[in-house]
Amino acid sequence: MGISRILIANRGEIALRIHRAAHEMGIETVAVHSTADTDAMHVRLADHAVCIGPPSATDSYLNTAAIISAAEIAQCDAIHPGYGFLSENEKFAEIVEAHDIAWIGPKPEHIRTMGDKVAAKRTAGALGLPLVPGSDGAVSDPEEAKKIADEIGYPVIIKAASGGGGRGMKVCEGPDTLASLMQAAANEAKSAFGDATVYLEKYLGDPRHIEFQVFGDGKGNAIHLGERDCSLQRRHQKVFEEAPSPVLSTEERNRMGDICAKAMADMGYRGAGTIEFLWENNEFYFIEMNTRLQVEHPVTEMITGVDLVREQIRVADGKPLSVKQSEIEFKGHAIECRINAEDPFTFAPSPGKVTSYHAAGGMHVRVDSGLYAGYSIPPYYDSMIAKLIVYGRNREGCIMRLRRALEEMVIEGVKTSIPLHRELIQQDDILNGDYSIKWLEEWLAKREES
Amino acid sequence: MGISRILIANRGEIALRIHRAAHEMGIETVAVHSTADTDAMHVRLADHAVCIGPPSATDSYLNTAAIISAAEIAQCDAIHPGYGFLSENEKFAEIVEAHDIAWIGPKPEHIRTMGDKVAAKRTAGALGLPLVPGSDGAVSDPEEAKKIADEIGYPVIIKAASGGGGRGMKVCEGPDTLASLMQAAANEAKSAFGDATVYLEKYLGDPRHIEFQVFGDGKGNAIHLGERDCSLQRRHQKVFEEAPSPVLSTEERNRMGDICAKAMADMGYRGAGTIEFLWENNEFYFIEMNTRLQVEHPVTEMITGVDLVREQIRVADGKPLSVKQSEIEFKGHAIECRINAEDPFTFAPSPGKVTSYHAAGGMHVRVDSGLYAGYSIPPYYDSMIAKLIVYGRNREGCIMRLRRALEEMVIEGVKTSIPLHRELIQQDDILNGDYSIKWLEEWLAKREES
Repeated sequence: MGISRILIANRGEIALRIHRAAHEMGIETVAVHSTADTDAMHVRLADHAVCIGPPSATDSYLNTAAIISAAEIAQCDAIHPGYGFLSENEKFAEIVEAHDIAWIGPKPEHIRTMGDKVAAKRTAGALGLPLVPGSDGAVSDPEEAKKIADEIGYPVIIKAASGGGGRGMKVCEGPDTLASLMQAAANEAKSAFGDATVYLEKYLGDPRHIEFQVFGDGKGNAIHLGERDCSLQRRHQKVFEEAPSPVLSTEERNRMGDICAKAMADMGYRGAGTIEFLWENNEFYFIEMNTRLQVEHPVTEMITGVDLVREQIRVADGKPLSVKQSEIEFKGHAIECRINAEDPFTFAPSPGKVTSYHAAGGMHVRVDSGLYAGYSIPPYYDSMIAKLIVYGRNREGCIMRLRRALEEMVIEGVKTSIPLHRELIQQDDILNGDYSIKWLEEWLAKREES
Repeated sequence: MGISRILIANRGEIALRIHRAAHEMGIETVAVHSTADTDAMHVRLADHAVCIGPPSATDSYLNTAAIISAAEIAQCDAIHPGYGFLSENEKFAEIVEAHDIAWIGPKPEHIRTMGDKVAAKRTAGALGLPLVPGSDGAVSDPEEAKKIADEIGYPVIIKAASGGGGRGMKVCEGPDTLASLMQAAANEAKSAFGDATVYLEKYLGDPRHIEFQVFGDGKGNAIHLGERDCSLQRRHQKVFEEAPSPVLSTEERNRMGDICAKAMADMGYRGAGTIEFLWENNEFYFIEMNTRLQVEHPVTEMITGVDLVREQIRVADGKPLSVKQSEIEFKGHAIECRINAEDPFTFAPSPGKVTSYHAAGGMHVRVDSGLYAGYSIPPYYDSMIAKLIVYGRNREGCIMRLRRALEEMVIEGVKTSIPLHRELIQQDDILNGDYSIKWLEEWLAKREES
């Protein structure tokens, strides 16, 4: 019969994003919300709304029982979890499916596998994704370590098996110092963790974060939709994302994309997924896979024209993907700025009432946000309140358009990261696409000094 | 040296549109405004603003001397007239050029030719554009009239040469009644206008309005960017426009587009232009040419990806067009809804203070508007306050997206045409693309009765 009513188990801009895709397919929406989100935009726009608990996410957006009850009472035939919250909770996915409700997400076993770091790497390796090369487990003999290091190439990093926080870690630039650094790392590990076991890995000094968007129909067909470059990060939080990556050639994109798509086809993966890599010296190194929609998915939508949420709903409904790999064209350039309710430079959260709001408009400008004038941003959740996504025929045009869109965007009453983005797009390194995952923190540190 | 500062001789959404294109090219903007528009969005965003007169457009937006003075004082090297106001005033264009300021518009002689109905038709005919067939001037002999009518095909319309307002007009369905209707028309014309002269034309009973977007570089190169279907009109005012037309085949588009582009190349036309046709039974009939940017230009931008205002600025700056005909791809479908500050069904103007404003957002939704919460819509000008433009991979998807975008759009404090658009996109004829230029008025009349 097909999906006719979706429960949106999320909040904020992504809840609105899902509502939009559903309505564009003629599907009704049910918003579930905490008492803090009664006045949220997606709650106002949804066909039905159910309050599922107090502000604390544990009692509302993570409250499995309340959400399932709401879905049953409101007669929903599908649940979309968005990102965060329950989106990568395989137990929840199983419960949803056990209730004969379509889970708009990957198969629970794939969520489980990819959610376990060790299993994910093993699976990725078995599927042909490139891993960070290193010793296969512990290494204690310096001669054996030299052989391994020669093979993977210097610099290498010696890591404590029980490590964390940088202790027991040594970067080695060449064979002459390997034995002594291994000894030093082992000593440090022994005293810090009571375990001298160390292993070797290729050292990535200044990598970029490049991720591939993949999509499977759950029946052995899968495609990739190119990559996103999300190297601009602060404390592992992405700040600004772009597609395509400024450093990837068409050949590299196709080669790596095909490897990713084939891996997903082999897995029988269903729905949207993102395979994250570190990238250095033209080599990819698998980090992890996110088995859900990504915050930054709109940049992919902008350059491919494919509505990813629509595809998610389609495949959850047993329909095939609406596009074949050969039909996917990468055209132009897109950038997303995450706009948070926070001080743009100290990053202190700034919840509160939005006294004035004006979204940027015009050609090739997209704003995904549940904000409106008079809305109070609650202090309980993630501080991201809007995404500004801009498209251009090329990267330069995209940046020019982004600059004018940032000029236009008005959010008053709370502090936001708009001033940060306005400064970022003036920086030569950003203009040149010349930045790694370390760039933003280093730039912020320098900025604070001066 | 190239254009570095543009004076925007207009107001409202189009002034903002021009500002956006200029800033995206790194060009400064100067807003000129009446005292009624001091708080307008484009005035706030422009790099400089000059008040040029009181609210009455005659004293401000049509005040040639004040605008030229502002351009000189503010050291502008180009003027963009937008649409309406001075945009098709060839004398103003000449004055601008005489002051060594780039005129972002067609050559004055082309504005003049196409602004004169008789000269425009003669020129169009000479350039190979199809005209409404008819007698070449007056016809009095019924036998001669029969020959002509046989040639052009029935129904024909007999029109008074001095006519207007429908008087002295008779539609003739076949040869049997031609002589008597000619006599009746001549009698009516004689008594109404003191002139019995009549002529014959092919009668178009239920045509569509289809127009082609053309663009020339002023040096003999020209392209077309496909058509727009603007059949949904009330009192000759377009209400809702789409591209491509639901009734045109790719072959027809290419054939007619090429004729239009060739005509423009032969003329040496510069800048953006629109060639308007009536269309019935797969035939085009030239009505007129607009030598300026059109309100509905965004639907063309959505399906081609070409920024028309940017192209206008480029060619005014002596640069070539940025795209060749062979590079223009028509992809997907776009619809624009004009949103006016007026009663949605009586059409009584509704200026005043906007107490709340929320633009629709999300994928493939574009809002061109200078509105913001707290803004007072002045009563002196055109009532159009926003354009909602939506894109979809096909017409059906576009309409679904338009529906949800209209659900989201909030303008409070004044009446707007949003409720009209919400009703329109529920009508089967609109969904099927089955409407002529008469449809809207007939539908409104029926709606009022019921």
